[in-house]
Amino acid sequence: MDRTLLHKLLDEVRAGTVSPDDAAKQLAALPYAEVAQAVVVDHHRELRTGVPELVFGQTKTAEQIAIALRELATDGGALATRVDADKARAVKALVPDAVVHESARVVSLGTRGARPACAPITVVCAGTSDLPVAEEAALVAEFLGAPVTRIADVGVAGLHRLLARLDDIRKTQVVIAVAGMEAALPSVLGGLIDRPMIAVPTSVGYGVSIDGLVALGALLAACAPGITVVNIDNGVGAAVAAVKIARLVKS
Amino acid sequence: MDRTLLHKLLDEVRAGTVSPDDAAKQLAALPYAEVAQAVVVDHHRELRTGVPELVFGQTKTAEQIAIALRELATDGGALATRVDADKARAVKALVPDAVVHESARVVSLGTRGARPACAPITVVCAGTSDLPVAEEAALVAEFLGAPVTRIADVGVAGLHRLLARLDDIRKTQVVIAVAGMEAALPSVLGGLIDRPMIAVPTSVGYGVSIDGLVALGALLAACAPGITVVNIDNGVGAAVAAVKIARLVKS
Amino acid sequence: MDRTLLHKLLDEVRAGTVSPDDAAKQLAALPYAEVAQAVVVDHHRELRTGVPELVFGQTKTAEQIAIALRELATDGGALATRVDADKARAVKALVPDAVVHESARVVSLGTRGARPACAPITVVCAGTSDLPVAEEAALVAEFLGAPVTRIADVGVAGLHRLLARLDDIRKTQVVIAVAGMEAALPSVLGGLIDRPMIAVPTSVGYGVSIDGLVALGALLAACAPGITVVNIDNGVGAAVAAVKIARLVKS
Amino acid sequence: MDRTLLHKLLDEVRAGTVSPDDAAKQLAALPYAEVAQAVVVDHHRELRTGVPELVFGQTKTAEQIAIALRELATDGGALATRVDADKARAVKALVPDAVVHESARVVSLGTRGARPACAPITVVCAGTSDLPVAEEAALVAEFLGAPVTRIADVGVAGLHRLLARLDDIRKTQVVIAVAGMEAALPSVLGGLIDRPMIAVPTSVGYGVSIDGLVALGALLAACAPGITVVNIDNGVGAAVAAVKIARLVKS
Amino acid sequence: MDRTLLHKLLDEVRAGTVSPDDAAKQLAALPYAEVAQAVVVDHHRELRTGVPELVFGQTKTAEQIAIALRELATDGGALATRVDADKARAVKALVPDAVVHESARVVSLGTRGARPACAPITVVCAGTSDLPVAEEAALVAEFLGAPVTRIADVGVAGLHRLLARLDDIRKTQVVIAVAGMEAALPSVLGGLIDRPMIAVPTSVGYGVSIDGLVALGALLAACAPGITVVNIDNGVGAAVAAVKIARLVKS
Amino acid sequence: MDRTLLHKLLDEVRAGTVSPDDAAKQLAALPYAEVAQAVVVDHHRELRTGVPELVFGQTKTAEQIAIALRELATDGGALATRVDADKARAVKALVPDAVVHESARVVSLGTRGARPACAPITVVCAGTSDLPVAEEAALVAEFLGAPVTRIADVGVAGLHRLLARLDDIRKTQVVIAVAGMEAALPSVLGGLIDRPMIAVPTSVGYGVSIDGLVALGALLAACAPGITVVNIDNGVGAAVAAVKIARLVKS
Amino acid sequence: MDRTLLHKLLDEVRAGTVSPDDAAKQLAALPYAEVAQAVVVDHHRELRTGVPELVFGQTKTAEQIAIALRELATDGGALATRVDADKARAVKALVPDAVVHESARVVSLGTRGARPACAPITVVCAGTSDLPVAEEAALVAEFLGAPVTRIADVGVAGLHRLLARLDDIRKTQVVIAVAGMEAALPSVLGGLIDRPMIAVPTSVGYGVSIDGLVALGALLAACAPGITVVNIDNGVGAAVAAVKIARLVKS
Amino acid sequence: MDRTLLHKLLDEVRAGTVSPDDAAKQLAALPYAEVAQAVVVDHHRELRTGVPELVFGQTKTAEQIAIALRELATDGGALATRVDADKARAVKALVPDAVVHESARVVSLGTRGARPACAPITVVCAGTSDLPVAEEAALVAEFLGAPVTRIADVGVAGLHRLLARLDDIRKTQVVIAVAGMEAALPSVLGGLIDRPMIAVPTSVGYGVSIDGLVALGALLAACAPGITVVNIDNGVGAAVAAVKIARLVKS
Repeated sequence: MDRTLLHKLLDEVRAGTVSPDDAAKQLAALPYAEVAQAVVVDHHRELRTGVPELVFGQTKTAEQIAIALRELATDGGALATRVDADKARAVKALVPDAVVHESARVVSLGTRGARPACAPITVVCAGTSDLPVAEEAALVAEFLGAPVTRIADVGVAGLHRLLARLDDIRKTQVVIAVAGMEAALPSVLGGLIDRPMIAVPTSVGYGVSIDGLVALGALLAACAPGITVVNIDNGVGAAVAAVKIARLVKS
Repeated sequence: MDRTLLHKLLDEVRAGTVSPDDAAKQLAALPYAEVAQAVVVDHHRELRTGVPELVFGQTKTAEQIAIALRELATDGGALATRVDADKARAVKALVPDAVVHESARVVSLGTRGARPACAPITVVCAGTSDLPVAEEAALVAEFLGAPVTRIADVGVAGLHRLLARLDDIRKTQVVIAVAGMEAALPSVLGGLIDRPMIAVPTSVGYGVSIDGLVALGALLAACAPGITVVNIDNGVGAAVAAVKIARLVKS
Repeated sequence: MDRTLLHKLLDEVRAGTVSPDDAAKQLAALPYAEVAQAVVVDHHRELRTGVPELVFGQTKTAEQIAIALRELATDGGALATRVDADKARAVKALVPDAVVHESARVVSLGTRGARPACAPITVVCAGTSDLPVAEEAALVAEFLGAPVTRIADVGVAGLHRLLARLDDIRKTQVVIAVAGMEAALPSVLGGLIDRPMIAVPTSVGYGVSIDGLVALGALLAACAPGITVVNIDNGVGAAVAAVKIARLVKS
Repeated sequence: MDRTLLHKLLDEVRAGTVSPDDAAKQLAALPYAEVAQAVVVDHHRELRTGVPELVFGQTKTAEQIAIALRELATDGGALATRVDADKARAVKALVPDAVVHESARVVSLGTRGARPACAPITVVCAGTSDLPVAEEAALVAEFLGAPVTRIADVGVAGLHRLLARLDDIRKTQVVIAVAGMEAALPSVLGGLIDRPMIAVPTSVGYGVSIDGLVALGALLAACAPGITVVNIDNGVGAAVAAVKIARLVKS
Repeated sequence: MDRTLLHKLLDEVRAGTVSPDDAAKQLAALPYAEVAQAVVVDHHRELRTGVPELVFGQTKTAEQIAIALRELATDGGALATRVDADKARAVKALVPDAVVHESARVVSLGTRGARPACAPITVVCAGTSDLPVAEEAALVAEFLGAPVTRIADVGVAGLHRLLARLDDIRKTQVVIAVAGMEAALPSVLGGLIDRPMIAVPTSVGYGVSIDGLVALGALLAACAPGITVVNIDNGVGAAVAAVKIARLVKS
Repeated sequence: MDRTLLHKLLDEVRAGTVSPDDAAKQLAALPYAEVAQAVVVDHHRELRTGVPELVFGQTKTAEQIAIALRELATDGGALATRVDADKARAVKALVPDAVVHESARVVSLGTRGARPACAPITVVCAGTSDLPVAEEAALVAEFLGAPVTRIADVGVAGLHRLLARLDDIRKTQVVIAVAGMEAALPSVLGGLIDRPMIAVPTSVGYGVSIDGLVALGALLAACAPGITVVNIDNGVGAAVAAVKIARLVKS
Repeated sequence: MDRTLLHKLLDEVRAGTVSPDDAAKQLAALPYAEVAQAVVVDHHRELRTGVPELVFGQTKTAEQIAIALRELATDGGALATRVDADKARAVKALVPDAVVHESARVVSLGTRGARPACAPITVVCAGTSDLPVAEEAALVAEFLGAPVTRIADVGVAGLHRLLARLDDIRKTQVVIAVAGMEAALPSVLGGLIDRPMIAVPTSVGYGVSIDGLVALGALLAACAPGITVVNIDNGVGAAVAAVKIARLVKS
Repeated sequence: MDRTLLHKLLDEVRAGTVSPDDAAKQLAALPYAEVAQAVVVDHHRELRTGVPELVFGQTKTAEQIAIALRELATDGGALATRVDADKARAVKALVPDAVVHESARVVSLGTRGARPACAPITVVCAGTSDLPVAEEAALVAEFLGAPVTRIADVGVAGLHRLLARLDDIRKTQVVIAVAGMEAALPSVLGGLIDRPMIAVPTSVGYGVSIDGLVALGALLAACAPGITVVNIDNGVGAAVAAVKIARLVKS
């Protein structure tokens, strides 16, 4: 149930064409549905938070992902993340209409209807190895209605690549910066632009990187003020935050 | 040098009333000034990033803070953070016009001129002990031009207090949520509103809290998507990020 | 040997129908048995601690689990935990009477006789991914004689789901709350009810979650007083603690 | 407002002697009071959770503690913890009726009225250095209405001391075990008794102890099932949990 | 070259039957041999440290282990540790005379000649899961010439089992105590006997155990003085240390 | 009560000159005494473990240390460790006969009577900064009856110093090696001698040393087998372990 | 484009045979090429940093490695690291001219032309298990033009092996020291020679070694001044650093 | 004893003007001197490693520092580091000729004679707070004979400051880069120059910075190959390493 439907229902209550009791029953019926296989989906999440439920595929079976996608798609479109190649194939077999985005480990089903207006977002990443997380962020942002500019492989070891793309970055209103290892890209970029920036540390690296903890720490310790950070490899969270911001932009 | 002055200079270059060489000299002269006592201030930071340099007082002496405040205030106002009570008194003795905000450990000097338009921001905190960090965030946001709503002591152990303030929170466009210990407040709030939210973990707690690391971890691991996080006790960073967002808001 | 048998034996000693020497031999014979394959089982544990030995399957072979289940079942029923799907099938092949609870990774054999009276317990969990640990806790509690109410997927990101179940929770005397990621559920719940609550952090999550350490830390740092905590994913420990409490309840 | 008063008010509403509106106003007036100096106290906490608010003194000034104690004592008695010697003297100067328990770092004011019936609790500690935390737990438990047995210095390095006190421990229904360093006491005790046990790790130790983290880890990893754990040095939390359990005991 | 041979050679030098130059050549020839496949073995280690080189199989291929065993066995016997089941089979195929001790992950070849006199050693372990490490320690100690008493499954959760074996333990001069999880066994035992004790933490456990780090920490923090500790799962190191001690024992 | 007295008492029981009941009373009276100020001392510890109780001064007040020293000295001599300079002066004022060893932070009182025979021990340390811990170990070992050789400042950065002292080290039977920073000394020494060696990491260092954790880790990971380790800065534990070993030495 | 070509181009600009515009286009065309499969290679890296791009194979597919090797080899030779055995076979199938160095996990293609003069480098390692990292360092150094002396298995547990090779080490100008476990080799060596030394910790070890973190910490804490350190297992970084130094050497 | 003196002595031995025995005595007399107050100084260190002993003042008293400076200065000059302001005053009182460098926490005495030729070194730092460590590195490098260029406050948040100084940096042969917080400066610089670079993480920062551990991790994880790292705040180690390199430079 999106907000349009909700307002319509409440208007009908005010107009007296729907009784409060009936409206209450309709509302109560929707919030969340316990469907098959212990899958519970939250149809009201978009109402409360502006963002529909996204299926976190990592801890679900292919069957559970398929059920959740189908149930959520009744609202107009659905998307599952962290679906590895094998699981994606199994989901596709169960839901032939699903679209698999392999490198991003994303499976989508259907297309959402009209979204709130949303300013453009840049997703920038430091190295080739950061691409899967960057692509997850980009796909989720697009699913939520944002135009996305992708800029890859502009790590600080080759500063000229980054400087060459500054104008493109400045054309968008919000930046998602994805970086592993020492994660210096957002620090440098944060000193060059005035846009809100959300940094995503990745688990790329070895040895002292400790599965991304050093990248996370470096981003939180960055001296360029105004950078905010999400969990390691959390492209989804960065995309949701960026879209919430981009929807506020003056048009 | 603010953006108005910059545009004026460039217009004069175009009009031929200032030669490119002279303009270059003016620009080169400004970016940063090495003043007394190894203090370097960056007058151009606002031009590049939209936010003027703020003085990080923790690793500076009272003399260095006083010099930096005076130098930066020539642009119209200046603010130093992490200035403890003793140091603040010493700064006040050196710069009698300075204003000391004791609980927030902030010292300000002068008032900036006109700022870009900025939507209102809520600063919410979970416990009494989180107040200093919350107040630092609020003061910095106000210094940068944001109207700020302060809501204190709405931790999840008393959920009714939080629910009672939801409407106030929804009246603003961006939320800064400050929380120590297990830092559950932003998770709960993130499921109730659709605003961009920046969470600030605090070092409040003892034992397993490890100076805020558990609060930081809990915020990054939060399942409510769209929350972004800054360093422990980093009220400044949250304020700068929130203002960058709030300036984008449709009016 | 349960407590009834023990008291009977000691009465017989007092009555002179069993000599102290013979009683000592009977007692000495029982405490623990070294059975095949380096498996040692402790028949007296229930006497000492009120809870029979449970088989920790993770570090045992299917053969060792089968032997231990059979040996312990001579006291009236036995239960093994942390038995993954492959191992469970192998145990079942060796002990056809065993019952496999797959999602909970539990294998049981036989049914214990009468248990001490025990008040009802609620097992509540925050997300779908926490279900296996919650179910382990529920099965162990039931094996020990507790009536169990299961409530799933009431994480704080959808607070209304939790509030809708408060009355059910209040009908029981002890609560086991299972939560991963930032583990905010027990904090919130702890501010709403007056029951003893045992929190179980789970290893659900990624990145900064570090296999459940952040959830564990958040639970220990929680500001709602009176919450106690067990090891990550330790449904067994929570169930044993809850049952020890529930057996004390005024009837 | 305790539960008796609440039930009386609700009965009056049912009887029609108090209007719902007036009742609502009375209830709304009480939940929490913002008193002087940014101190907020929660008068309704006992209603919701069975335990009144306790003042956490560590992050409060002597003035704030004094104000909070006085405000909370209007409900019949109040108690502040983590008040070091200097601060306690300052509180005593402000509130001459306050009683200072120095080694436990506790300050109390007044005596609560009748409490719910509560079974006796044992507080046992492993070493002399653990005494302050053990005493904090004992004082809080007594404040909440529990009879308390104190047993000190029964660490496992002198096992005979512990065995000599087993019968005393078994006379109570709930055990709080306080232990630092390697924290082996609760493990050993957990194999000898059938009571619910809450273990409190302490920050006693040096080197690898890392401020109590090893004691905490050892307690959580303990193989004796049914032990639950609270934060390092958290005597308050253990006492609240123990009292919640002891109130359930069959009389 | 063992010490007897060395003394014989030096005597011959003194007697003039071997020239210093020839002796130097013999000695220089022996110290270490670079054999096939980048395997270097140290024939002189026993001379210098009293203990021959043991092959650490974990980071070696089956071929390298086979070569090292054969080369070292020319001194009278050889032993490889950390050889998993698959690798052990491959070694056995290459060196049919080798003996595989599967649960201890040890492969031995030949039997050393006479060893220095060595007092008996006890290897005690807390749980069934600690058996592989305990057996590694026992086998290495026997290889180095020590009579070994094995005592299994005497964890502190069943204290009576431990007390029942105290007399056996006291009959030996040195104790190796192997324990995982919270590793309370050595603490308890250390308060009951006056023998030197070497504790070996194991990686048994889950969640907060962090691969044995909590057991290690608990052992180092143990309040029973005189316990020394080796690396996690390091049965070899404990055995070597115990044998060095036992060789000193008054006979 | 030392062992001689104990055997005398038991002989008298056997001879019939002391009744079992009287003997039991005498024994029961001794084990531990609760003296003033919550100080409990364990007079039987030497009987059980071969080593008398040593007073751990760090968490005790000067008064408590004074009381404990006096009470324990009735057995023939007493020793307190971790007594900083201020506290030592206060103890000395209370117990004028006490002897203060300032750099080692040790205070002793009286001299123990005859000890079991004990072979000589070497205490070797790597740097000047490790001296306090080395001296603590040496004093405790001497208190327990061991002849001690002290060798200072033989770190591996000046290998020649170490090699120059090898013969001295080989003249003793047990080695305590004290080392901070990267703690390489015991590894090198372990490859050069055949004595049992106990390594003590110290908290000397900065930055990555993390209060001795790196030194501890390096010692546990050392490839020279047979080195055992105690807690950071734990000179007492190393001395007790070394003496237990040295008492076993063939004379 | 190597430096010779660059200088030639700039000379032509000065000579007027190439216009500045054309030169700019040539330079702009080269910096980096986006080739197939999201592979971006940086042809200018050698110009800027003196070292060509090396392919980090760990996070790339065999196809991506093959493409990158071919593209980079157009400058005269290319090298990929962290290519495991399976991936190396796949690369070899795609690029038959490639050479696989299996134990070092390196694949090379073609031979670079003339390099800047470079003094000889020693690569020394402590144990057999450190050989793969040492060989990676040696191969990269040779690829960059350095003559390399390899010295293996000179760990400090067998100090004589190390001392026997000191003269060889002193014949070269820069030392790369590779060591796992407690990593004592570089500390010892640093006290014996006056050469710049780069230490590489390896992930060899178990238990407390924590994947090389203890070795890393020990190297950073080493008291022999002048040792510098790279990431765990980072043979490439050590080689690049050593070559940059060796190219400076006086000839 | 510097190398010139040594060669003179050895020449005299060869010439027969000094007997080998006398020469041996002279050499043996020098290596290290045990002077007053447990201070041991190593006069031969420069002979072995090319760098004289530097006094690490942090763990020494003012008296010990004074003694060590005087003893070492007999070789021509001496320098102590990590001497805080109070201790420096006390040293100055004892050794009036000493020179105190307050911000760098360095005290020097006398001037060394001629040093080996040494190429110039740049010391660059990212923020004002990093200045003390940078100055320590610069002073030590100058003491060892290196010409030093100091460049301050060129952090990546103001990238233009760094780019403006690139030419100055390129004029020297070795770079020491000092950086705290997220330590991005060396990563960026490493992509722009071809000089050997030694990075020094500093303990500047708060919250997640954990006393410099994040800066250290970021530097080790940096993707720009060829950067080597020393311990946190270790300006001395960086200077020694840089000088060892700079002495190799082609002149």
